[in-house]
Amino acid sequence: MEQHNAGRTPVTVIGLGLMGQALAGAFLRNGHPTTVWNRTAAKAEQLVKQGATLAGSVSDAVAASPLVVICVSDYDAVHGLLDPLGEVLDGRVLVNLTSGTSAQARETAEWAAGRGIDYLDGAILALPAGIDAGDEAVIYSGPRPTFERHEPTLRSLASGTMHLGDDPGLASLHDVAVLTMMWSILNGFLHGAALVGTAGVPATAFTPLVKMLIGTVTGWLDGYAQQIEEGTYPGFDSTLDTHVDAMEHVIHESESLGVNAELPRFVKALADRAVAAGQGGDGYTVLIEQFRKP
Amino acid sequence: MEQHNAGRTPVTVIGLGLMGQALAGAFLRNGHPTTVWNRTAAKAEQLVKQGATLAGSVSDAVAASPLVVICVSDYDAVHGLLDPLGEVLDGRVLVNLTSGTSAQARETAEWAAGRGIDYLDGAILALPAGIDAGDEAVIYSGPRPTFERHEPTLRSLASGTMHLGDDPGLASLHDVAVLTMMWSILNGFLHGAALVGTAGVPATAFTPLVKMLIGTVTGWLDGYAQQIEEGTYPGFDSTLDTHVDAMEHVIHESESLGVNAELPRFVKALADRAVAAGQGGDGYTVLIEQFRKP
Ligand SMILES: NC(=O)c1ccc[n+]([C@@H]2O[C@H](COP(=O)([O-])OP(=O)(O)OC[C@H]3O[C@@H](n4cnc5c(N)ncnc54)[C@H](OP(=O)(O)O)[C@@H]3O)[C@@H](O)[C@H]2O)c1
Ligand SMILES: NC(=O)c1ccc[n+]([C@@H]2O[C@H](COP(=O)([O-])OP(=O)(O)OC[C@H]3O[C@@H](n4cnc5c(N)ncnc54)[C@H](OP(=O)(O)O)[C@@H]3O)[C@@H](O)[C@H]2O)c1
Repeated sequence: MEQHNAGRTPVTVIGLGLMGQALAGAFLRNGHPTTVWNRTAAKAEQLVKQGATLAGSVSDAVAASPLVVICVSDYDAVHGLLDPLGEVLDGRVLVNLTSGTSAQARETAEWAAGRGIDYLDGAILALPAGIDAGDEAVIYSGPRPTFERHEPTLRSLASGTMHLGDDPGLASLHDVAVLTMMWSILNGFLHGAALVGTAGVPATAFTPLVKMLIGTVTGWLDGYAQQIEEGTYPGFDSTLDTHVDAMEHVIHESESLGVNAELPRFVKALADRAVAAGQGGDGYTVLIEQFRKP
Repeated sequence: MEQHNAGRTPVTVIGLGLMGQALAGAFLRNGHPTTVWNRTAAKAEQLVKQGATLAGSVSDAVAASPLVVICVSDYDAVHGLLDPLGEVLDGRVLVNLTSGTSAQARETAEWAAGRGIDYLDGAILALPAGIDAGDEAVIYSGPRPTFERHEPTLRSLASGTMHLGDDPGLASLHDVAVLTMMWSILNGFLHGAALVGTAGVPATAFTPLVKMLIGTVTGWLDGYAQQIEEGTYPGFDSTLDTHVDAMEHVIHESESLGVNAELPRFVKALADRAVAAGQGGDGYTVLIEQFRKP
């Protein structure tokens, strides 16, 4: 144990919910001396068995390591725990992996700057089971030198460890931006599973085709991103008008099979607006203009 | 040329829109003697240069090959072209790759049976540029022996050539089921691109993270499909309540950045209903129950 840990940065993890436990477990597995604290101390039990040190107070937990990772329910909980601490935080690196908005991230970065705390704001784009497993992403923003100094330690959590820029709001902004994507994929999958289910096709038999389709659509994104950047949306492959026709089919099919048609109706209402604005001959990406509107 | 084509099934393609041209081009490239017909004959020009034979009428086109593929705008156009034909269709295999609903597919299969036509209904889950390229899917339903007899020829169109069952409605049903998925992915991407765009992040810089997230979510689908099949939705990784909190963030972030918040609001309204039904402690897949309701 001693040998494994030689030279590995000691880390403190505050918050041992589903995610905090996964984070602390990953640091331990990667040989970092790990101190933990949780409001409900019982949640530290498994981690202590794996070699973690349970601190008696938040202040003791912070004092134990140069790098402090916090992952609790929300930013209010973060401030509830850290604001009362005195200078024990001074000079330490605080990495906040609690989900929130970019405004909350920027406010917390200012609060940290006022206290002499080196602050990185991060976001986890994975389930607890995906921590330190596979190609999951954990993203960070804040001062690049701080990130670079601790990158080897942070890589214990995810191979997809990325720094998105100095603006501390960028990690939350990107998190929020891909969350909608996540729910969209899941909703599309559930709607599709409900549809094929009407013909007795089990969801597990539907999944291989779904994966193939996801691969196909993923292959379009680079070109579509290019169109968005250039601000031109040529409909060379398929026009919005064609898509709207197909949306009609899907609504009709969903209704006649007695399946919820809200999702395709929502999709069509948005596209209809662009068609009404004379963009029916453009490609699908012209809808970015709808998404940019409040 | 003669040698290449030796033994390859002659194919007729009716309809030379964006997709029909791609289909005929793929058959030609794979060495099939290819006859084409289109209402607007000029669209056959390129294909004729590549070796296709332009038929003078739909009837001549059908007579030229044992395998007839039709891909026009909709089923009305299909019937408009084929219903007037006499017995020239008898004993031929008709593969209809026109998009439509499962009911239209089943009706057309009945019509074909009444005429002694061997009928396969298909759907193309790719753009024209994806035909005979990459891992795209073209799916079929109808009598398996008919599919198997012509599978080598149909593989000229897509490596992801699949037969989904004897019920001729299954291809359209699966098509409709994955189309919603496609728009959902694209809308999630566009909403996300609009969000990061407010911080000056170009869409091309956002795409790598999006791809990583898509990979992560795709990795959940097998397990989620299993849950759907078993009808139990344990929230062991993340509960619907946690998702709803995050949806709040996304709505708030979208609104405060002046970006369209309709998509996350739609997503949340659906989840709220399940929470109101007491399912907040379940996992995300419990929403299948919402999607199953008309
Ligand atoms: N789970 C996921 O799949 C996932 C994925 C990506 C991101 N995240 C994010 O990770 C963060 C934590 O999520 P989780 O899944 O670990 O949630 P969780 O299982 O509900 O745990 C919440 C944690 O926050 C603590 N906490 C809440 N309010 C507190 C307060 N006022 N004072 C002190 N501690 C407080 C809890 O302490 P007690 O144990 O004492 O209640 C617990 O440690 C959230 O921001 C979440 O959005 C989660
Ligand atoms: N493009 C795609 O990305 C894509 C992807 C998947 C599936 N599909 C499906 O493929 C099918 C064809 O799409 P496409 O992209 O090729 O469309 P398209 O470029 O608009 O072409 C439509 C074709 O249908 C013909 N047509 C329409 N009405 C007709 C009528 N009443 N009589 C005779 N011919 C008629 C057109 O003939 P004229 O040339 O004389 O007008 C043309 O050949 C559609 O069902 C579509 O949903 C397309």
